[in-house]
Amino acid sequence: MEHKEERIDDLQLNGLRIIQNKNGFCFGIDAVLLSDFAKDIKDNTTVVDLCTGTGIIPILLSAKTNANKFYGIEIQEDVADMARRSVLLNHLENKIEIIPKDLNYLKDIIPSASVDYVTVNPPYQKRGSGLINDKDTKTISRHEISCTLEDIIKESARLLKFGGNLYMIHKTERLVDVLCAMRKEKLEPKRMRFIHPSMGKAPNLFLVEGSRSGNSFLKIEPPIYVYDKEENYTDDIKKIYNIAE
Amino acid sequence: MEHKEERIDDLQLNGLRIIQNKNGFCFGIDAVLLSDFAKDIKDNTTVVDLCTGTGIIPILLSAKTNANKFYGIEIQEDVADMARRSVLLNHLENKIEIIPKDLNYLKDIIPSASVDYVTVNPPYQKRGSGLINDKDTKTISRHEISCTLEDIIKESARLLKFGGNLYMIHKTERLVDVLCAMRKEKLEPKRMRFIHPSMGKAPNLFLVEGSRSGNSFLKIEPPIYVYDKEENYTDDIKKIYNIAE
Repeated sequence: MEHKEERIDDLQLNGLRIIQNKNGFCFGIDAVLLSDFAKDIKDNTTVVDLCTGTGIIPILLSAKTNANKFYGIEIQEDVADMARRSVLLNHLENKIEIIPKDLNYLKDIIPSASVDYVTVNPPYQKRGSGLINDKDTKTISRHEISCTLEDIIKESARLLKFGGNLYMIHKTERLVDVLCAMRKEKLEPKRMRFIHPSMGKAPNLFLVEGSRSGNSFLKIEPPIYVYDKEENYTDDIKKIYNIAE
Repeated sequence: MEHKEERIDDLQLNGLRIIQNKNGFCFGIDAVLLSDFAKDIKDNTTVVDLCTGTGIIPILLSAKTNANKFYGIEIQEDVADMARRSVLLNHLENKIEIIPKDLNYLKDIIPSASVDYVTVNPPYQKRGSGLINDKDTKTISRHEISCTLEDIIKESARLLKFGGNLYMIHKTERLVDVLCAMRKEKLEPKRMRFIHPSMGKAPNLFLVEGSRSGNSFLKIEPPIYVYDKEENYTDDIKKIYNIAE
């Protein structure tokens, strides 16, 4: 099932596994945090995961929710192929469809206002920022090369039904960019959660839920601390990772 | 010096004192946190404090910084009069001027792009939200009756020189409103700090520094926890309050 340069990891959740490229961009804690943040997704709904990469988000959400259809959108053909093989590996082909497509050209495939939820763990680096040495899959997964934050939020707004939700994780340095772009596209930020490496440290990531045409009132939930004083995972993280204590 | 219904409180800082109305809006931890957040104000600069109320912010900043001129703007005549008496009580009349004026009509008094810093601890309640029983000073200090958040940020942008900073504290439920209004007025949010009642609890307040015509890159600083597990002030708060341990 896995190609050369790839490995299969056990997700510690209902026996799920995932194929990842050893030299590519492997999923991190962000994907796990995002799937936890989105776990109140209602039954029999449709979810689109933009920038799906390995397909980790729909694969995790297929076990954590009772949504009945997931679309994972991935611009890079080889990465999309790997995600599709992970779907097959888990026998989820009836639930998860991987679409190898630029999200700016999804209109022909998924109609406007047809989706209940959008999830996205986007490339974190702003276009033109940071060192870009090459155009390989790792770079595309990390940098806004194929699409900008504004593209992602605009497409999310297009896809969502009235009352539908976007769930996103991003770096705190992009907080203003994310919140202002969401409001601009009438995807009102309603719920947030900040991730701190440990107690007392500044948050470096945040989770945000935006509601299509929601009123403005933001609720911030308690912070998530990743490590405790002894550099072990906190109970919050163990719970999210499904690790028995 | 103090009128009937008023009291004089010791600020525990260089012998400073403040007059407050026992039945009015008394300054809270917010003002102390804001003055700490703004303490890097440079020497020989001009500071405008909007919605100054009792004058607590300029009075605290007169001791914490070497700015040489403060203007405290207060729409309510009687509150402005009380603030002015606090200025006299502390012999700060050469440094702090209280201006009893609606901030929407400051143009005639303070020219555009003439100020180095603006500080503001605005009314927290959105216009039209919450229970408004009367039009007394407490209500005006808490609700956006005389001016909206957008008015405050627009006027701050007008007052500030290029490179000048706005320092604001607000409730987290207004986070999106504050950040988007700042960006709209080209007062880019550059630095933030969240205030949590205690560790593990959601933040209820945030501090934000906006820079006039700054590039977009936000730095979030470590959180401030107000109380520890034993319900005592944390060391951070003791330090901010200047309380010897």
